[in-house]
This record gives sequence, C-alpha cells and structure tokens, in this order.
Amino acid sequence: MTEKINWLRDEEPSGYQKLIGYEVTDWREGYAEMILPVRQELTNRAGDLHGGVLATLVDSVGGFAGCFCNVEGNVRRCLTLTMSTSFVGPVKGGTIKAIGQKQGGGRRVFFSSVRIVNEDGSLIATGEGTYRYRGNSGSPEGEPLE
Amino acid sequence: MTEKINWLRDEEPSGYQKLIGYEVTDWREGYAEMILPVRQELTNRAGDLHGGVLATLVDSVGGFAGCFCNVEGNVRRCLTLTMSTSFVGPVKGGTIKAIGQKQGGGRRVFFSSVRIVNEDGSLIATGEGTYRYRGNSGSPEGEPLE
Amino acid sequence: MTEKINWLRDEEPSGYQKLIGYEVTDWREGYAEMILPVRQELTNRAGDLHGGVLATLVDSVGGFAGCFCNVEGNVRRCLTLTMSTSFVGPVKGGTIKAIGQKQGGGRRVFFSSVRIVNEDGSLIATGEGTYRYRGNSGSPEGEPLE
Amino acid sequence: MTEKINWLRDEEPSGYQKLIGYEVTDWREGYAEMILPVRQELTNRAGDLHGGVLATLVDSVGGFAGCFCNVEGNVRRCLTLTMSTSFVGPVKGGTIKAIGQKQGGGRRVFFSSVRIVNEDGSLIATGEGTYRYRGNSGSPEGEPLE
Repeated sequence: MTEKINWLRDEEPSGYQKLIGYEVTDWREGYAEMILPVRQELTNRAGDLHGGVLATLVDSVGGFAGCFCNVEGNVRRCLTLTMSTSFVGPVKGGTIKAIGQKQGGGRRVFFSSVRIVNEDGSLIATGEGTYRYRGNSGSPEGEPLE
Repeated sequence: MTEKINWLRDEEPSGYQKLIGYEVTDWREGYAEMILPVRQELTNRAGDLHGGVLATLVDSVGGFAGCFCNVEGNVRRCLTLTMSTSFVGPVKGGTIKAIGQKQGGGRRVFFSSVRIVNEDGSLIATGEGTYRYRGNSGSPEGEPLE
Repeated sequence: MTEKINWLRDEEPSGYQKLIGYEVTDWREGYAEMILPVRQELTNRAGDLHGGVLATLVDSVGGFAGCFCNVEGNVRRCLTLTMSTSFVGPVKGGTIKAIGQKQGGGRRVFFSSVRIVNEDGSLIATGEGTYRYRGNSGSPEGEPLE
Repeated sequence: MTEKINWLRDEEPSGYQKLIGYEVTDWREGYAEMILPVRQELTNRAGDLHGGVLATLVDSVGGFAGCFCNVEGNVRRCLTLTMSTSFVGPVKGGTIKAIGQKQGGGRRVFFSSVRIVNEDGSLIATGEGTYRYRGNSGSPEGEPLE
C-alpha cells in the first residue's frame, strides 16, 4: 500500500490538488483516504469551510477508491459522471479526513460512497459519486502511464 | 442590479472565492450568474477542469440565487444542506459561466437549479442544491450585515 | 411523434407503469412527457403524494427522454445509473405532469433533467438522472425489439 | 422495539406502502429496516425491478430512520426535501431489504444514508435523503398522533 502511494506521488499531483492542499494517506483496492488541513483560504463568507471544498473531496476520494492499481508502472483513470454531497455536521477546523469506498459497478462504470470526518471522528459530510473508467482502466491491471 | 453586485463587492469575497477565482456577474431575485476563467491550477491529472471546481460553482451560484436582498445594507445568508452535479459535456477552456435559478421553497429552505456552460453556450454541467436560510434571511428584506 | 407513442403502446407497458398508472403523452428526440392522475393509493401517511411516486416519474421520464427511436420496429433501451429528486413545492392533486429533457452525453451514457408540475404549471419537483444505454441503443437508430 | 413496530402497525400503513408492499421489520432511534418481496408488478419493460421502487424504499426507510419515537401514543413525522439513489448492482429477485441510518442533523432537518441488499447481502443500491421534521417532531418525544 505504501508503495502505491509513493507511485502516486511520483506522478505529480494535479494543479487543483495542490491548490486545495489535500493529500492521499491510504489507497487500496476499493478504498482511499485523503486528509486536508482547514485554512482560511478555504472558507466562505461566514468563515466556515466552503461546501465546494467538501464536494471536491467527495469527487476526488470516490474516484481514487475505484482506481487503485496493483501493477507497477500502470495506472487506472476515471471520469466523474455525477456526484452528490450532504452537509450533515459542522466542521471543527484542524485536519479533516475523507474516506472513499467503492460500492459496486463493472468494467465501465463504478460507484463510490464517501464520508468526511473531523479529527475526533464526528461526521461532517456524506456523499456519493458515479464514475466511468477511461480506456481499459476498468481492469484491475490498469494501463501504462504515458 | 448593478448596485447589488457593488454591495456584494463591498463585502469582501470569501477566501475560497478568491482562491478559485470566480466572480458574480449578475444577481437578482431568484437568479445569479458567475464566471470563472479556466486556468491550469484548476485542472485534474488528465489536464481537464476538476469536477470539484464545477461542484463549487453549483454550490455557490445556487446559494446566491436564493439570497438576493433588495434592502440597502442588509444581506441574506444560507447554509447548503445538499448538492449534486452531473458532468454532461466537455469543458473547452476559456471562461465558463454558471447560472443559478431558485426553484421554490419557503421561509426556511429553498432549492436551486444550476447550469454551467462554455463561452459558446454549450452545456458542461447541471446541478441542484438545497439550502437553509440562516436567521431571518428567509425574508426578502434580509437582515443587517454585521 | 404520435406514431412513436403508438409503438410504445404496442409494446405492453411495464408491470410497474400499470401499477402506478402513468402514461406517456409526448415523446421525441431528447424529450418525453408523462402524466399521472393522483389517487389515494399513491399517498403517504400524511395524505400527500408519496415522494417515491415522484422519484418514479423522474427515473422513468428521464430515461424515455434519451431513448426515442425514429426507426420503425426498433427500440432504444437504457439502465438508470443514478437519480436524484428535490421536492420543491406542494402537490395540489388532480393530474401531474413530468417533463424529461436529455441534457447531453455520448454513445454509452446520457443525462436528463426533469421537472414535475401541477395542472396549473406550478413546480412540484425537479430531478436529474444518469443512464447507460443497453447494447447498441446509443445510436439513434436503436436496435430491433427482440 | 417490537412494540414500536406494533404502534406503527396500529397506525394504518399508507396507501402507497400497501400498493408497493414493503413492510417495516426493524425500527429504533436512528435506524430502520424494511423488506419487500419482488413481484412482476414492480418490474420495468426489461423485466427488472423498476428503479422507482428502489427510490421509494430509499425515501421511506431514510425518513423512518429519523422518526423513531419512544413515547407511547406519540409520533414523529417528516417531509423529504431531497433524495438520491445509485443503482450499483443487479436485483436477484426474492425479498430485498432496505436499511436506513440517520447520519446527523438538528431539530429541523436530518440526513439519512440507505443501503438496499439482496437476500444474500449483496448490494443493490445506495442512497441518501434529506428530511425536514414536521411541527415538533424534531424532539425525540414527538407529538400526539393526529
């Protein structure tokens, strides 16, 4: 698992990932975790974490959950078809964690459920995403990064 | 209408709005528009605009659509309860536009539908949001900014 | 257009369509309409139309909107991947109408937006659906009804 | 718990619950379960369980999950604001089970997550619902029926 994360890091994070500042902390078949330190740049006019940040985490971690690849040098990629988020509890600041779990699907489309929690484990948001695999990424072997 | 936007601008944009870079270009009762120039910092690993950016626009413009206030010095504020986005077409770069329209609701909760389009008007994404008014913001008169 | 509806009717309505009682009243490329008379069997414990009935209409009319076929004897079929509904206004009884419009997509996946209105045109619900075409139904020509 | 279900049964099931045929099999604070035997009347033109039936279960069991009341003779009631469903796996027939869990919220609004499974426990659908309490139903004590 650690190696996978290293592979991921070898692949430069996206511009948007760097802008928002989230980091992948766990990645396995059907599962991914990301953490994000809350900072002032991510807040809305009321001073709370902007919902768009939480939606970003739902979209991202749900996609990662379906794209773990266990073949060295290969990757799996997907497009988001649709995503939804429910904002169920307050963000308490500090570092939040997003947990994505693949829920089913096939070679072309997969589904993920996401939970986002505070440092104390209390629930901030739930979400769901539907994704389409790019190219042959529906196979666990993925395809060469290029 | 222009004045309202000026009022909005008098109120400093949120940290997150500045980070992402969207701008309110129209705001009336039940309606809001935002534009966003696409730039590299907003892209995913495939080089496309990140879905989280589109979700951010859905969340934001849908909320603005229900929070126009026609009393000078007053504001209306809301919390997002839930939001969803469908990614229906490719982003062609340039400047994209998000259009939010309030669809109904009452004194406590309202609903908005959102469309996001390319410069040529072609559809990129659709979305829906559900929002709860803060305090007395359910009234069109809003409440004093403070 | 009328002929298409006749073709549809030649194809026996599904068991569930008959149970709920909705009827297709318009069907064209990218567009479908259904009507449903509200009756006591469709109500919840509070005596209002059950949300599941509205969700049923969203799912169905959104799918029809992407499956119109202009080749006699052929059909287009789809599976729903995901759907959402917002309940934005009260149902006033009588006969309600659901309007589905295809919003984009490709050969494999399409998206629809749905509005459900009272007889006086007031909005009851909005919704979105994402669908995957079965077999070769992604082509406007469809495929032979088996 | 059994008594609660009896109370529920004392209150006549809704017209729509009887039409669809689902039954509440577990009900506690923050949790509800329903079962539904699949029958031909609930299928679409392809002979599969109609998505509207699954959406109905998401809407219903998610609402029940937030409306358990531990005061004899009292009830808690809610309105659905918005709901979404992802259709993640095939229905294998037999009797399906929907499990609703309240995820958070306050005195006015609550959120539920739902999973629907086959008899063998394999996942059919996931969903989320957002609900507004009617009257004083936000309190665990609820209010007198009628």
